[in-house]
Parts: sequence; C-alpha cells; structure tokens
Amino acid sequence: MNPQSSPLLTDLYQLTMLQAYFDEGMNEIAVFEFFVRDLPPQRNFLMTAGLEQVLQFLENLHFTPEELNWLAGCGRFNTDFIDFLKTLRFTGDVHAMPEGTLFFPHQPILRITAPITQAQLVESRIINLLHFQTLIASKAARSVLVAHGKLLVDFGLRRAHGAEAGMLAARAGYLAGYSGTATVLAGAQFGIPLYGTMAHSYIQAHANETAAFERFARSQPTNTVLLIDTYDTETAAEKVVKLAPRLQQQGIHIKSVRLDSGNLSEHAHKVRAILDQGGLSEIGIFCSGNLDEHEIARLLAQGAPIDGFGVGTRLDTSADAPYLDCAYKLVEYASQPRRKRSEGKATWPSRKQVYRIHAADGSLDHDILTLENDVQTGTPLIQPFMLSGKRMAAPEPLEESRHRAAAELARLPEYLKQLETAQRPYTAEIAPALRQLAEAVDRTTH
Amino acid sequence: MNPQSSPLLTDLYQLTMLQAYFDEGMNEIAVFEFFVRDLPPQRNFLMTAGLEQVLQFLENLHFTPEELNWLAGCGRFNTDFIDFLKTLRFTGDVHAMPEGTLFFPHQPILRITAPITQAQLVESRIINLLHFQTLIASKAARSVLVAHGKLLVDFGLRRAHGAEAGMLAARAGYLAGYSGTATVLAGAQFGIPLYGTMAHSYIQAHANETAAFERFARSQPTNTVLLIDTYDTETAAEKVVKLAPRLQQQGIHIKSVRLDSGNLSEHAHKVRAILDQGGLSEIGIFCSGNLDEHEIARLLAQGAPIDGFGVGTRLDTSADAPYLDCAYKLVEYASQPRRKRSEGKATWPSRKQVYRIHAADGSLDHDILTLENDVQTGTPLIQPFMLSGKRMAAPEPLEESRHRAAAELARLPEYLKQLETAQRPYTAEIAPALRQLAEAVDRTTH
Repeated sequence: MNPQSSPLLTDLYQLTMLQAYFDEGMNEIAVFEFFVRDLPPQRNFLMTAGLEQVLQFLENLHFTPEELNWLAGCGRFNTDFIDFLKTLRFTGDVHAMPEGTLFFPHQPILRITAPITQAQLVESRIINLLHFQTLIASKAARSVLVAHGKLLVDFGLRRAHGAEAGMLAARAGYLAGYSGTATVLAGAQFGIPLYGTMAHSYIQAHANETAAFERFARSQPTNTVLLIDTYDTETAAEKVVKLAPRLQQQGIHIKSVRLDSGNLSEHAHKVRAILDQGGLSEIGIFCSGNLDEHEIARLLAQGAPIDGFGVGTRLDTSADAPYLDCAYKLVEYASQPRRKRSEGKATWPSRKQVYRIHAADGSLDHDILTLENDVQTGTPLIQPFMLSGKRMAAPEPLEESRHRAAAELARLPEYLKQLETAQRPYTAEIAPALRQLAEAVDRTTH
Repeated sequence: MNPQSSPLLTDLYQLTMLQAYFDEGMNEIAVFEFFVRDLPPQRNFLMTAGLEQVLQFLENLHFTPEELNWLAGCGRFNTDFIDFLKTLRFTGDVHAMPEGTLFFPHQPILRITAPITQAQLVESRIINLLHFQTLIASKAARSVLVAHGKLLVDFGLRRAHGAEAGMLAARAGYLAGYSGTATVLAGAQFGIPLYGTMAHSYIQAHANETAAFERFARSQPTNTVLLIDTYDTETAAEKVVKLAPRLQQQGIHIKSVRLDSGNLSEHAHKVRAILDQGGLSEIGIFCSGNLDEHEIARLLAQGAPIDGFGVGTRLDTSADAPYLDCAYKLVEYASQPRRKRSEGKATWPSRKQVYRIHAADGSLDHDILTLENDVQTGTPLIQPFMLSGKRMAAPEPLEESRHRAAAELARLPEYLKQLETAQRPYTAEIAPALRQLAEAVDRTTH
C-alpha cells in the first residue's frame, strides 16, 4: 500500500459515509469546492499549487486487491460494498485555477463534480495535496518578491515534514520562482535545477580546512562552493585567497563561498573585502541558516554583498503560518445547491466562478465571486482540467506553471507586495446572484 | 523512484561530498550524532520517535538501476563513483534512545557509526524522519498530559504536510498516548485503532438532518457518532432525542454526538442537558475544530462535559512550533574526536552517553551528558539497535514504544508537565570529561 496513491490514505469517515451511501442507494452527482477561508497572518495573497498531483491521484484512483482484503477483514464494511469498491474509479470532472494563479479567501481553486461516493472518498487526499503545495508556493512567493532576482535555493528537505513534504516543497518553491533545490530526487522527478555545496562534516573530516577546500575543488572543479564558517569565517576566507591561485593553475575557479552562521551581513561585508583585496571579486557569496523572506529583505536592505540564499526550514514548513484554513465543501447534490451554516464556517452554495478585473496597467484591481452561470466581465479564473475522469490535455510542464506564477507576481499591486499585512485587503467581492442563492438555500434546508 | 526509500531523497551536497571522498580514497569510520540544540517555545521536554523508520531505511539502503542511471546521466559524477554506489549498503552501527524516551537539548538521541560515505549519504533522510516524528510525539504528549485519560484522536491527515506526514503523525501521536487516528492507512499499516464519524457533506446531501442521522445509524449500527453542528447544534440535539427511541427499537444505540464549531464549552453544556433530559445520558459528546492542548485544557478546566477530542491540524503540523532546531553532526572521524565551532552552533565531540538520575519517587531528577567511556551512575539512555548493518532484535512493536512513552510521562516532575515554559529548565549537565575533550579538540583543529 503506497501512501502516495492508496485510497486508504483517507479519513475513516469517508469510508463509513460511503458504506452508508451505498446502503441507501445514494450516488447522485455531487459538487465539492476547495477554498481557503481566511488569509493567515502576514499573507496578502495566496498562490495555487498542487493541481498536477491531484489530477495524477484521480486518474489512478483504484483499490488494490491488498487494500480490498484489508477493508474486508477490518469488520466495518459489508461484502456488497467491498465489491462496489473493486470497480470504483474516478469518472468525474475537475475544474480549477491553473497552478501559479494568485487567489484570495472564499474563492474556489478546485471543483470536483462526480458521483458522491467518488467525490467524498477523495476529499482527504485532495486537501492534503492542494493545501500543502499552495501553502508553500504562497510562502515562497514572498521571498521571490524581496530577493529581486538573487539566487534562491530550497534547502529544506531535512526538516520538511516527511518525504513527500520535501519533494513537494521543492516543487512548490520552484513553481513560485525559486531557482532550484538541493533535493536530488526533486531534480530527478520534477526536473528542478539542483544546487549544493558541502557540509561542515566534510571540513571536519579533514585534518585542516585548506586541505578540505582544495580536495573538494579538485573533485568538483565546475561546482566549487566552499563552506567557510566551520571554525572562523574570516580566517577561512583568507585561506581561500591563498588557495585560489594554486587552483587557478589547475584550471579550477572557485564559484562562491558559503556562510551559514553568525551575523551574515557583517560576515558577508568582511568576506567580500577579503576576497576583493585578494583579487577574487568574481567569487560570489552564498548565505544560509535560519533564513526567510524577512531576513533576506533585511540583509539586502542593509546592502549586504550576498549573491544567493539557501532557504530551508522556514520555507518547507511555512514556519510562520504552517497551515491554511482551507476546506473542501459540498455545494450541490443531485442538482440542488447546498451550503453549511455552522458558526464561523458558513459556505457559499453551488458551482462558482471567479472573475478577475485588471487595472489599465495590467495589475490586479478586484475579483468577483459568483455563480458559474452568472457571467461577468473580467477574466474567468476557473477552467476545466478533467472531464468524465479523463484529462483534457497533457500535464502542464512545471516550467509553464512557473512562468504563469512569475507573470502573476508581476501583476501584484504594490500594496500587496509588502511582507507585512496590507493596510487594506484585496477587493474580492461576492456577486448579488450568489448572496441571493445562499439566502434561498437557507430557507429550504433544515 | 520511491521517495520513502530512495537514497536520492537527499541533499545534492551529500553526493558531491561522497564523490570527493571517493576521489580522495577517504572512507574511514565516521561517527555522527543527532540532537536538538534548543527547546522550542512552550516545550519543557521532547520525546523521541521515528527510530523504527530510520532502521527500516538503513537496512534497505541501496541504489536501484534507475537511480544509478539518473546519476550517471546528470553529468556531475564519474563512472568509477557510480560503480562504487552500485554496491553501497549500510554496514554500520546504530545506537539510540528507544522510541518514547524523554530527552533534552544537546543529548544525542541517535548515533551512526559507519564508513563516512554511508554515514554522510543518509544524513538528510535520517534528519527528515527523526525530526518530524519527534516533533509530533513531543507535541502530542502535551495534550495527553492535559486530557487526563479522555479519548484523543488524530484528525490531522488533510492538513498534514503530505502523505508521509499524515501517516507518521498518526504513528507519533499514538506512540505519545493518543487513542487512535482517523487515517485509515495508518490503521492498516501500523495497527493503530481507527476512529471516525461523518462529515457535514453527509448531512447536507440529505433532504433533512434527521433522515441523515437515521440512515447513518442503520448503516453503522455499532459506530453511530452523529455530527450535530451543520445547521443549529441544539436543534440537532433535540432531533437526536426524538430519533433515539425509534433506533433503540431496532437495536441501535447512538454512541455519541460530535460538535465541530462555535463555543464548544457552551454547546457541550447545552447538548449535555438536552440529551440528559431526553434520557440519553449514555450518549457521549465528542469535540473537534481547531483544538490543541491549550484549548483542551481550557475546556476541561471550565468543566465542559466533553468525553473525547479530535485534534487535527495543530497536532499534525505542530502548529505552534513547526520545527525543531536539530542537527546531525560529525563527532569523530578515523578515531579522532571532532567538533564544529560555528557561532551559536558549536557541538560536543566524540561518542556520547546520557545518564538519567531519578528521584526517590521515580521521577526525573537530572541528566548527565558525557563521553561513552566515562561511566556515571544513573540509567544510560542510549542503547545499540544495529551492528554492522544488522538489527540486534526484531522491530519493537508500536504498543511497546507506546507503553514506554506512558511510563516516561508518568515520571515527569510536575514543573515540566505544565503547558507553559517551566520557570526553570530541567537539569541536563555536561560532564567535566566532555568539556575537557572539547577544549582539547579546539587546540588541535584549525
């Protein structure tokens, strides 16, 4: 049972509800929409990511014999129902905002239209996939906005929450505009450019620092990034200056040095001066260590001579906001609009569309959330991706999603680009037609 | 390439360092230790978890032909090195604190002793596995301490960071004392008890709430938990009172009702009164919705008549502290002790042991961190689990780790049990022998 594809990676209640629907003979078309209720603190916008993994999951949805055996043996489900699950596949439709699109609270970024058993079963994993990548892309976009084109590399695998988190954080970060990742398997699987240097242990394993630098440079002559903070940063920079001419005679050019601890701005200034005085102005300075968008903005505002940043833990865990208040909610069943009225968690009924209105300069002006059949002016953001269980096109290349994300970020108005919470939120209106339907639904459900 | 087992789920620098070690003919025995530098805010202790997954990863470590092909084609590594990787297996030793052990900053919870290429390659995934489960077990233990035996269920899959995070959070939560999880695959794979109710969509898909309750009860007669907050909580409780006698005639007893929104304490009091007045005092009240240890403690302190809690997002993401400041550091190479002196990130050299000294009542009194060969009184916490790549015993059953965790929590002194940061930290001493070695190492490395 592979957690990434198993339909048993779901909440138990999905299966008990399915058994109940099966017993009742209820399997009309249900429509569910995924949306985020509120922006977390310090976010002025969100960016969609993870749709490709959702589509892969849906097109491969099936129970293996091993999974069916386990279900049959667990004592909660009857034989007829297990037989029904044997042939269950996803035969529904998927509408969504394409990956890399900016969006705001209460705007659906994914819609599933399918017999209710299918649409319900996949809830847990769809949320699991869309929530995480959207969380990380939204976080990564913030450092992209403040780095102004400097190299940004995902270093977060080790403290990402498990294997898939490491992989998908690398993907979401790249999509949002990072230059690449250190995670090798993300390079192999998603084609993301790989970056890497050396660890402190490499320096420590050698009798002295200069020997470690020299041997690494000989082994990686085209990718020589030297880590210089193991013992004393400036002393190590002096060693680099002494070593460089010897390496140059062998045709090896040191690409950059890496700082990973202490006051990065101070060290970068000192190291830059040492390298420049040593005639090594072509060697770049790459920094890592507890970085996030705030720290990058601070370092660059101080004029720290830093050429690139490795961002790890705080990106891959979205440390300042490690989750989004998102939901996947039933909005229609058997052609009847539905909504939930729970306190603080009310939802908008029926199939919806989001229209985006751009200003004359191309920047985002405002959005309108309305019913799918209530056509408005502006650009409709939700498009069909799968009909009757079949994709409408080949998977979108990651580079294309990344270009979309870059174009979207370029269209962000200035007041939403700042790291702090904007003084006014983006205008995301609810159309009158949608409000009227919500009131009508409330009068009929009980 | 399966992310959970692939050796390519690593940082690029591990492989470039391996190439350099290979070129240099360096492959002496290295000793690495994993530890946490500092307690995050609001943690007075940490609990080990994830060792079993580390052991599985190490005993299966190998490159598949597909992975070797990718490495050969990526242009960074030479043919001799790829040949070397073909036969690479983990042949080293693993010493560790068993799962469910309480521990404190700078105490190693895992030690790897192996040829440096092996010990280095596995760094990223070992941290990835140990960090996450330790993070979650340490968080879960806090709600276990305040719930005083009430039912605690992991509901966090949907907002866990990916598939593996959902699975391993369920495992770490159960290890720390949760009663079970809603994640079906965690039940199938780890044998964790499963719990589940129904979603709002199930209520919404039916023409009225009572019909939904009745049909679900008939389909799940032995597991009838009714979700009563979709429209109006107290009205729904009244419907349950009216429905119960009809179901009883069919031999169906409603087990509990679930509240998922609004003021849970107020609703629980009102619903308890409605159920009791209706002669349904045997029906329990189960709550969910943005819960964590603080909210559980608050609800129980208010005397809210709640019998169980579903804890989701804030558990599975460890939302208040989504990462630990942990490291896997070289402490010895070729029989020479090593340490790193980077500012704020200095490490203790050589193979170490942690001795725990208990008070007369069995509670934790203090710990001593020292060199492995500097024997102290007290209980040594680090034990061998794998020698020369072979496990020393069959995998420990999860129930056994869970019993250890419960015994450990029972030994926590009162001042460490509180949710807020303790007024004084636990005493975790550094032995003189270790300090002396650190100074000696500093005199010889440069």
